[in-house]
Amino acid sequence: MSAYFDWAATTRPNPEILELANKIAVSVYANPSSVHSDGKKAAQTLEQARTDCARILGTSPSTLYFTSGGTESDYVPLLALLQRPVRGSVAISAIEHPAIAEQAKMLSHTGWETLVIPADRDGFVSPEAVLSTIREDTAYVAVMAVNNETGAIQPVEQIAEALVQSCKGRKKPHFHVDAVQAIGKIPVSFTSTGIDSGAISGHKIGGPRGIGLLYLARRIEPFIRGGGQESGIRPGTENVPGAVALAAALDAAICGLDIDHGMKMMDMIIERLGSLGGFTTIPESRTLSDSRFSPWIIQLSNSSIPGEVLVRSLSAYDISISTGSACSSRKKSRPVLDAMRVPKNIQQNAFRLSIGPTTDESDIEQLYHALKEICRRL
Amino acid sequence: MSAYFDWAATTRPNPEILELANKIAVSVYANPSSVHSDGKKAAQTLEQARTDCARILGTSPSTLYFTSGGTESDYVPLLALLQRPVRGSVAISAIEHPAIAEQAKMLSHTGWETLVIPADRDGFVSPEAVLSTIREDTAYVAVMAVNNETGAIQPVEQIAEALVQSCKGRKKPHFHVDAVQAIGKIPVSFTSTGIDSGAISGHKIGGPRGIGLLYLARRIEPFIRGGGQESGIRPGTENVPGAVALAAALDAAICGLDIDHGMKMMDMIIERLGSLGGFTTIPESRTLSDSRFSPWIIQLSNSSIPGEVLVRSLSAYDISISTGSACSSRKKSRPVLDAMRVPKNIQQNAFRLSIGPTTDESDIEQLYHALKEICRRL
Repeated sequence: MSAYFDWAATTRPNPEILELANKIAVSVYANPSSVHSDGKKAAQTLEQARTDCARILGTSPSTLYFTSGGTESDYVPLLALLQRPVRGSVAISAIEHPAIAEQAKMLSHTGWETLVIPADRDGFVSPEAVLSTIREDTAYVAVMAVNNETGAIQPVEQIAEALVQSCKGRKKPHFHVDAVQAIGKIPVSFTSTGIDSGAISGHKIGGPRGIGLLYLARRIEPFIRGGGQESGIRPGTENVPGAVALAAALDAAICGLDIDHGMKMMDMIIERLGSLGGFTTIPESRTLSDSRFSPWIIQLSNSSIPGEVLVRSLSAYDISISTGSACSSRKKSRPVLDAMRVPKNIQQNAFRLSIGPTTDESDIEQLYHALKEICRRL
Repeated sequence: MSAYFDWAATTRPNPEILELANKIAVSVYANPSSVHSDGKKAAQTLEQARTDCARILGTSPSTLYFTSGGTESDYVPLLALLQRPVRGSVAISAIEHPAIAEQAKMLSHTGWETLVIPADRDGFVSPEAVLSTIREDTAYVAVMAVNNETGAIQPVEQIAEALVQSCKGRKKPHFHVDAVQAIGKIPVSFTSTGIDSGAISGHKIGGPRGIGLLYLARRIEPFIRGGGQESGIRPGTENVPGAVALAAALDAAICGLDIDHGMKMMDMIIERLGSLGGFTTIPESRTLSDSRFSPWIIQLSNSSIPGEVLVRSLSAYDISISTGSACSSRKKSRPVLDAMRVPKNIQQNAFRLSIGPTTDESDIEQLYHALKEICRRL
């Protein structure tokens, strides 16, 4: 039996949702931008998917744009800065996903400066840290909703409020929230005042690859252009089957969200691994049922086993875990842990467990027994 | 019975290929960037799809990168210019798809100038036109392989050769070929010397939405960044099911390419519509079995019926056609026809018929009889 603890990298897709996508792909195959009746039918199907997503997310359909995934939803608002006549700075948190962090670095080639908002030792970014980092010329701020390596839930609503309050009388920076690890996983709202954009990925919530959503409180002037699809915000032939599947995945994830199950499973992980000895949570302050963290993600460290070795050792038991994020799995550096001032020797032994709605006691028992054996052998 | 003449906008997807994609999505669901065995299996599946695509396209797997579609494959090399330390100019043909044309315009916000390479009255871009447009500071040239509105096959290999010859002793501009309407539709090679990048879309050849290929003869430094997937060229969790489906779609389209069937059907269209009177081809010089054009796309104009009216009238007969491209269907301007100096009154009445491998005589008879009735009523 295999056990999967890498849900934050990607989820097992829901086969019913995949089948629905294929049904739509065959029955509503025309290009939604075509004006003939088949095209109109495709456009209607797309708009229905948008309306469904909006209802589930508690926002208006006019704020939602389908993209190819979380990364694109992250870079569209960021790159929109490039069409502005005046350059300035962007402020991103020290714990952002590479989709934001790496792209922000590239903006330096176009005259934009990147400021980094520090996180505290527990991996949280406070409104005060945001306000003390931004400058008058800061046009964009990004703080993710849930960190993908530690599960730390960021106070994005308070940050939004702080930005609104502190920028009275002048233009508030655009505030972007990467909600890829938040939507469908914790109760989170996009409609808070001061949040200007947000990113959602389909495959992180049981949907197919290659589809995501960009939330925009107000229309922006995008820099990425093409055929004018998605009201000009996201060019490329609309992925109608993907959009319908995403609506279904959002519905299943949000309406079926059982956070108590996640909390119960996460507590069991912390307790079982704690009983083995040698395992500490990152940050160490993380407790059982700690509401500061998503119950679906935890970062841990073993006192003697390097994270990479643990990933490989568990893989031999058919148990899938990862060190940091999948996106940075091939890199040695751990910017999120650096930001938390985690010592290098602990960083080296750090690993991530991420769980999902179907994770159960038997998965955790399997993990526990495998870890017990691995620790004994060392 | 419906008849579909909008294959250039999108094709009916092959249900077997869609099923294959779903099978992969369920069986190889892990993130290919994860280092556990499930992740490795996903990575192997992805690399096999790349190898399959490379074999079919006659290139090396290391030149191919999976993207979300044609538009992204078009903008990745173009936006790569933004990380260059020195600005200059880009030269794009007057008949490029909006994925290139609209994005190139946006580069002006970043200090780049856009030069437009003229087309002749028949809609062709000559090597001479390219050479007389580019300047010493031109860093990028784009000419599409097959125009999406007229089907005109562009001499991209000769243009590549001319660029190589004329730039001896200095850095040749990056030469990009949008091959979205060419690959799987006409015999075309990506491996010609002097072609630096190319774009392919899955859904234009019977594959699913949301997957495409970017060909890069040599690695470039991209501007769009994120989690480092696709060797850093295209960020975002890899769409493994889409990649496998694209390989299958390429195989079916290229290995099963029956250009004689396309030619026969296109000749039948020209003859049948010609017999009705009032219909002219755009350009007028297009003849039966005209090897200068893709047999799958034709632009026509009726002497008295506006294109939009024709689209709607035929739609009532369950026949799908379009005016220009789906991507520009909501715009009034027709840049491609402008570039060909087509008079405005003819532009207004212009429409596109595009066909595919399953288009048959009965589709064309249906179109013929519907047009006959529509013309009689007017």
